[in-house]
Amino acid sequence: MFTVRTRSSDSLARTGTLHLVHGEVQTPAFVPLATRGAVKGLEAHEVAELGYELIFANTFHLMLAPGPELVAGFGGLHELMRWQRPIITDSGGFQVFSMGHGRVADEIKGRRRSEGEGRILSIDEDGVRFRSYVDGRERFLGPEKSMAVQAALGSDIALVFDECTPFHVTRDYTARSTERTHRWLERCLRWHAEHGPEGQAVYGIVQGGVEHDLRLESAATVAASDCDGIAIGGSLGQEKSQMHEVVSWTTGVLDERAPDRPRHLLGIGEIDDLIACVALGIDTFDCAMPTRLGRHGVALVPERLDLTKGRFRASQGPILDGCPCPACRSGYSRAYLHHLLRAGELTAVRLLTLHNLSFVARLMEDLRRAIDDGRLSEVSAAVMAGATSSSR
Amino acid sequence: MFTVRTRSSDSLARTGTLHLVHGEVQTPAFVPLATRGAVKGLEAHEVAELGYELIFANTFHLMLAPGPELVAGFGGLHELMRWQRPIITDSGGFQVFSMGHGRVADEIKGRRRSEGEGRILSIDEDGVRFRSYVDGRERFLGPEKSMAVQAALGSDIALVFDECTPFHVTRDYTARSTERTHRWLERCLRWHAEHGPEGQAVYGIVQGGVEHDLRLESAATVAASDCDGIAIGGSLGQEKSQMHEVVSWTTGVLDERAPDRPRHLLGIGEIDDLIACVALGIDTFDCAMPTRLGRHGVALVPERLDLTKGRFRASQGPILDGCPCPACRSGYSRAYLHHLLRAGELTAVRLLTLHNLSFVARLMEDLRRAIDDGRLSEVSAAVMAGATSSSR
Repeated sequence: MFTVRTRSSDSLARTGTLHLVHGEVQTPAFVPLATRGAVKGLEAHEVAELGYELIFANTFHLMLAPGPELVAGFGGLHELMRWQRPIITDSGGFQVFSMGHGRVADEIKGRRRSEGEGRILSIDEDGVRFRSYVDGRERFLGPEKSMAVQAALGSDIALVFDECTPFHVTRDYTARSTERTHRWLERCLRWHAEHGPEGQAVYGIVQGGVEHDLRLESAATVAASDCDGIAIGGSLGQEKSQMHEVVSWTTGVLDERAPDRPRHLLGIGEIDDLIACVALGIDTFDCAMPTRLGRHGVALVPERLDLTKGRFRASQGPILDGCPCPACRSGYSRAYLHHLLRAGELTAVRLLTLHNLSFVARLMEDLRRAIDDGRLSEVSAAVMAGATSSSR
Repeated sequence: MFTVRTRSSDSLARTGTLHLVHGEVQTPAFVPLATRGAVKGLEAHEVAELGYELIFANTFHLMLAPGPELVAGFGGLHELMRWQRPIITDSGGFQVFSMGHGRVADEIKGRRRSEGEGRILSIDEDGVRFRSYVDGRERFLGPEKSMAVQAALGSDIALVFDECTPFHVTRDYTARSTERTHRWLERCLRWHAEHGPEGQAVYGIVQGGVEHDLRLESAATVAASDCDGIAIGGSLGQEKSQMHEVVSWTTGVLDERAPDRPRHLLGIGEIDDLIACVALGIDTFDCAMPTRLGRHGVALVPERLDLTKGRFRASQGPILDGCPCPACRSGYSRAYLHHLLRAGELTAVRLLTLHNLSFVARLMEDLRRAIDDGRLSEVSAAVMAGATSSSR
């Protein structure tokens, strides 16, 4: 299901094509989030028009609403949301465990979870029992259930159920959690071999936190399994340098043990991380960043341009000179966007979402071409250099 | 600036064309709100693609942000928001006086105004001094200032500055307020004759509340002035039947005293009101209804379909069978929209906004054709009959 076209001579970077039930995906690629079945603010055809070939939906959220039975009754998620290209679904492991672990941001800010949020009732070898944030009912998610939901959603790529080990736990906790994730990998693959939809690819997930030996062992274990592709999850450290290190440990093993299988990096997608991790051999990325920044009034140029700031009040130019995105192409000025953002107008959120996703799509296209041309480090350096000059 | 094409034989309904600086507008027409310089959630080109030829922006809000100087510096509101067709601007009278009168909804619910809201500091013959809700600064709006702001915005049609007399005041208050509105009409026309932009049309505003004699007198006074068109404002009563009565008093006078001048009904746009008031001789309407309902998950079919309700959870069909709007044409099911609305996804708000505006645009097109064909009552009855059958 994956063919490599070009391997970089001075890094692990490569270009390739994912061959999936609903079509092909050129890699390296960024994968926009359609967590609940919609890329926030956009219609499916608009996402395709931006050049995206793959989107990322979420098993946990879609299981709770509208529910796998309803989605299956509509002929699957593709049909429900009118997206005809490939979909990858997260297993729900990250979300279900997040209810227990809390988020790093919550820890830092001392936030309590609100009444409306779900919570974990119990965790054991079979999975997690929890209370739904949608209707307060008791629900269950485990390896087989996750695969069954992903089968009902009809995604092109399913991820195995895992525990996304958080950063603030002990090495011992990480080790035991990673071992259980490996047992769940086998259970998921077993379920899928018997019941999985024809053609649906399954990605295993490498865990192991920031522990060098655990990451290597996890990468080797997942590479040794029958999975079609490999995702890298879990805590990748507190700083970018540590994250790049953890990724490089992992892709180092994968490049040796499973050189022809595609690799997905979960939840990472800042501009500099995309550039760094493509060189580390990552094929696909998902991240809320471009869409979330857009909702907060921030444009990628590739530096972050916070258009809510007063300095853009009378700024005549477009977000980014020469940008072919729907917002820049239509001639909307930074001043107009600034005004709409200050006034709380949805139109601005949408225009920034379109700009940011367009920006990232073109970046990935540039990186693919650069790899094919043997000019990746040169092109990467030029993009990063452009960051400072374009934000003024 | 207005040519009548067909006059209905059995009502005051008529079709016509407004000839404005930025193009022509076929009437009767609904005019979507672009209060702060954007139709909520949409880009200007999308509004044009729905068939709209005229939008309605607000002097009060645009004066406070981004400010008339900035808009003028960008070449006017058309250029700022990238809308090349005609714009009508409200005078700001309604908004500035609303700060003092409070809204009917506030009265009923016993709401106090919050700190962030503006408030009136003083009212006299020259206008209103108030505190801006944007930055808390003291500001002023009066007849000449309103016309100057509308000149800076560069709208095709400016409305004179008026006091929108509320419903809960005495007859004496309404009488005095209406007389002042008439004095302001003359001041606005005088300012405009000397300083107004070339080609900008000016509409006078009929007030008089629900008092029969005051409405007749106001309509006659405005008709006797040099204004290019006539808007009907102020309190139109508490019930639809009273509103239709007040409108018919007014258009009755106008049809005699100013038969060839266009008439705009301010703030009215429910489906049944559009149908009723077209027959009463109204040429253009503005209203928040189609866009506001969309933001609340309600679709016009023409009855109101509240897609947030549980009964749409598994509803397979589109919002409206055979509807050519971007949402229905793309095949989104009611169930998908229900899911997105429940999940708080912006995509749904946008799709319902597009559907509702498309629905109203087509209704007005049907009414125009019906008038030209001499079949208005027949077509109106058919639309109202469709209300019950299409909502299931």
